[in-house]
Amino acid sequence: MKIRIGIAGYGNLGRGVECAVRQNDDMELAAVFTRRAPETVSVLTKGAAVCSAAEAAAWRDKIDVLILCGGSATDLPAQTAEYAELFHVVDSFDTHARIPEHFARVDAAARKSGHTALISAGWDPGMFSLNRLYAGAILPEGKDYTFWGRGVSQGHSDAVRRIAGVKDARQYTIPVETALETVRAGETPELAAGEKHTRECFVVLEEGADAARVEKEIKTMPNYFADYETTVHFISEEELRKNHGGIPHGGFVIRSGVTGWEKENRHVIEYRLKLDSNPEFTSSVLVACARAVYRLAAEGQAGCRTLFDVAPAYLSAKSAEELRAELL
Amino acid sequence: MKIRIGIAGYGNLGRGVECAVRQNDDMELAAVFTRRAPETVSVLTKGAAVCSAAEAAAWRDKIDVLILCGGSATDLPAQTAEYAELFHVVDSFDTHARIPEHFARVDAAARKSGHTALISAGWDPGMFSLNRLYAGAILPEGKDYTFWGRGVSQGHSDAVRRIAGVKDARQYTIPVETALETVRAGETPELAAGEKHTRECFVVLEEGADAARVEKEIKTMPNYFADYETTVHFISEEELRKNHGGIPHGGFVIRSGVTGWEKENRHVIEYRLKLDSNPEFTSSVLVACARAVYRLAAEGQAGCRTLFDVAPAYLSAKSAEELRAELL
Repeated sequence: MKIRIGIAGYGNLGRGVECAVRQNDDMELAAVFTRRAPETVSVLTKGAAVCSAAEAAAWRDKIDVLILCGGSATDLPAQTAEYAELFHVVDSFDTHARIPEHFARVDAAARKSGHTALISAGWDPGMFSLNRLYAGAILPEGKDYTFWGRGVSQGHSDAVRRIAGVKDARQYTIPVETALETVRAGETPELAAGEKHTRECFVVLEEGADAARVEKEIKTMPNYFADYETTVHFISEEELRKNHGGIPHGGFVIRSGVTGWEKENRHVIEYRLKLDSNPEFTSSVLVACARAVYRLAAEGQAGCRTLFDVAPAYLSAKSAEELRAELL
Repeated sequence: MKIRIGIAGYGNLGRGVECAVRQNDDMELAAVFTRRAPETVSVLTKGAAVCSAAEAAAWRDKIDVLILCGGSATDLPAQTAEYAELFHVVDSFDTHARIPEHFARVDAAARKSGHTALISAGWDPGMFSLNRLYAGAILPEGKDYTFWGRGVSQGHSDAVRRIAGVKDARQYTIPVETALETVRAGETPELAAGEKHTRECFVVLEEGADAARVEKEIKTMPNYFADYETTVHFISEEELRKNHGGIPHGGFVIRSGVTGWEKENRHVIEYRLKLDSNPEFTSSVLVACARAVYRLAAEGQAGCRTLFDVAPAYLSAKSAEELRAELL
């Protein structure tokens, strides 16, 4: 009997979940829920249903875990709690500052309906958070650094696209190599945002747009670019499609800390991700979390969880005996 | 009320635990148990008792978690199960192939007496194992690589010291940089042991010993050196003491895997440790695990666990709310 997965929202993340489910023998995709007209949406998985989001309630007994694949800005703040009334759910809510309130809302809904929810799965929040927790628990006297990239920032790309005269754009966040090396060497500098990352933009102009004015607007944009060393390249639409069509990302979580009676020994813990596809990696974490939620739900553990609350073995398809014999 | 820690065995690891306990405000060192005459052992912590191992039973109600700091070859196979009859315990049993039988023995003893035990904590087994588990659960189609070093291997140093004419020696295990770069780049080569690591020996000769003969004996020693590119340096006793007195170690766990409907996207997950002191870092993991064991025991969870079975939040001194707000 396989774990029956539902997907709510069929964009990059939803498709990534669909692909990841196929890579896990103990799971199958039961249904995809969409706000579009279902007949206009075709999925990759043979036998999986495509349904209107309004029909979800009819699937209560036919789906073990529903994975929410909407966005954190407007979809998930309402959706996760709503769906937790019907299903065991997993989401990738990633607005760090609003996690406590999102947790409280989902926890209340899940407890009331007796479901298990897991929020903020992915890589940051998610695997990066886990590594900050483990590293801090092991080295209580130390300092954390998180570097992102090299990767496409959706938010920054959107900001460039909103400038008049810009037809399309892609923005890469890039860690400053010297800062990374300093931290890796065990030093613990105070680093301003602009000392940790640079930004690189590839911009397609509308016909007749003033390149110099666009470049200046980008480089002086507050919050997004003004505090960073920013490079702007103007390229053709074809080049953008050909060379910048992917959604790579990744980054580094590094903790540097000391031990010993005189704090004489230094240790550096580094976790690094290098991802060809940001949404597909996030999806892969969501699917492993769905397995954990399925198991927690079988134990009757109602309420909201995060990766912090889940014993690692729950994420793996292997048995406890296999894990101890093969991976410990 | 602080968590009262006991230490069994006061070598490098035991002293490391003592130092780590001082770095954690929610813990205090209650007693150190030794097989030596207690009056010959002086500890760093004011107020901590030093007792004969034979007196341990008298401390049943005065210690919350006992951390076993003996060796995996002869101490822990008997000790952990024995002490689990009296205490909640943590050990760093690191003979990978014998973990299943050790687990079974400790589990039986702990269940019988109603105690909580956690075995094989440290970095490998331990943090490296956790990273193998997480990475494999996220990327089921992929390949794991573990590289060790640069660091001192006690076993290989001992092997060199057993050669006639060798007064003292230190052996470093070193990852092959080109192999590491290949794996990091997302390739998945099959690598023989000697393609992943080289070995470097610093040897102090007895007076009149034949350097050429010693070097040949090292380089041709089966299992330990014959399959590796090995470099031998002959140095003075003073140089050894001055430049090779530390016990640094570390290494890399890398998983490279694919996602996507056509497996078209590759991801690389890398976990790296760079440790000034192998025993002190291991001790720091043991102490975080003692906190987890204390909490599991308070829930009445009897039996043996590993890091695979422990929700990460249990290792941290921070509350669930703090963790979500600060680290997620």
